[in-house]
Amino acid sequence: MAGERIDDLLTESGLKIIQSREVFSFSLDAVLLSRFAKLPKRGRIADFCTGNGVIALLSSDRTEAAIDAIEIQPRLADMARRNVAMNNLQHRIQIIESDLRQYAQEAGNGIYHAITVNPPYMRPSAGDKNDNEHYTIARHEVMCTIEDIAKATCKLLRPGGKLYMVHRPSRLADIMEALRAWRIEPKIIQFVHPKQNGEANMVLIEACRDGKPDLRVLPPLVVYNEAGEQMI
Amino acid sequence: MAGERIDDLLTESGLKIIQSREVFSFSLDAVLLSRFAKLPKRGRIADFCTGNGVIALLSSDRTEAAIDAIEIQPRLADMARRNVAMNNLQHRIQIIESDLRQYAQEAGNGIYHAITVNPPYMRPSAGDKNDNEHYTIARHEVMCTIEDIAKATCKLLRPGGKLYMVHRPSRLADIMEALRAWRIEPKIIQFVHPKQNGEANMVLIEACRDGKPDLRVLPPLVVYNEAGEQMI
Repeated sequence: MAGERIDDLLTESGLKIIQSREVFSFSLDAVLLSRFAKLPKRGRIADFCTGNGVIALLSSDRTEAAIDAIEIQPRLADMARRNVAMNNLQHRIQIIESDLRQYAQEAGNGIYHAITVNPPYMRPSAGDKNDNEHYTIARHEVMCTIEDIAKATCKLLRPGGKLYMVHRPSRLADIMEALRAWRIEPKIIQFVHPKQNGEANMVLIEACRDGKPDLRVLPPLVVYNEAGEQMI
Repeated sequence: MAGERIDDLLTESGLKIIQSREVFSFSLDAVLLSRFAKLPKRGRIADFCTGNGVIALLSSDRTEAAIDAIEIQPRLADMARRNVAMNNLQHRIQIIESDLRQYAQEAGNGIYHAITVNPPYMRPSAGDKNDNEHYTIARHEVMCTIEDIAKATCKLLRPGGKLYMVHRPSRLADIMEALRAWRIEPKIIQFVHPKQNGEANMVLIEACRDGKPDLRVLPPLVVYNEAGEQMI
């Protein structure tokens, strides 16, 4: 399609991805979430807000589980489907074009062993809304709030199952409050700092359905060293 | 008193402190909280769960505000009073022997510009309760839970006033939930890691009475470098 390009996902298995500057490009967030998530070897997992499917693709390298990847925007769901086909992963990844809120009501209780999600980061009211509708939906909580994700996770994740989320530290209190309200207990968090002496600009969260309260904070991930070289 | 010793607080002003191995010794927690807290220059501030008064003493070096230091245990309140007298700070620091829950009901609304607290870290039910009652009360939430602190802060801190807390990362979700339930919004957090590649074992929190939701995560504090030398 016009405006699209094919990028290499830099995995050993040679995964490739169709991206478009007009709608969405994968970034460090997706790569770090994929490394952070301890996925079950088998079973059934989901990727919420999958966009062009990048996290589902990366997960397919790390687990033999069946992967359901949910996306509300038709144009992105189409791109995700073509990404799956291009990598010959139709037998492993199913792209589901659906509103997560609706999907959670229909798909069944506790059907997933693990869930990954790279949600929209900004509050619906936050400034700088992009004129491009695709960007707005991907970046702002227009169609999907933290509360929606917590509620859908509570419905779809089996007890003891894990949710893996990447988000902005500015929303950490909102995230913890929403997760706990829906019986998803934060268990492990890790902050990502662009520089050793800089504030965190990303947070990785592992939370457990019906988990016991007890949080661990992993060593910080630092992206660039003092010479400006990328470390991770 | 038997079993007590006098230590130097290593401040430029030469503050000294009476400590006892039997009841309480100040530690890195208190020093880091004191450095972390941005106290108002004047006005009236409080230190909850003051123990032997170490944080109140350290704060007296950093602000000219009147300091109320609240402690429930008579033996520790007495030690705190003697610490204040030994440093000739009776005109600056008032030791209040009281149950914080009771004190918050009686002392008046919004009377403090800032509050510091180094609370008991462990859940009441947590194992390893010390046979020594003083240790048990200082370490376990027997007399004072996170909820009690949040509630007392909501009552005693003026709108826009800051709460500064040091705690264990394992309790972060509990802390955020309790603070928000009492209109104390977490604004800045900083994790303390013993080593660069180790998990955090302490968290410093700045929260604001009636603050807007928006959290910053400062660069990590690392205590020891690879050679085992103390860095902070």
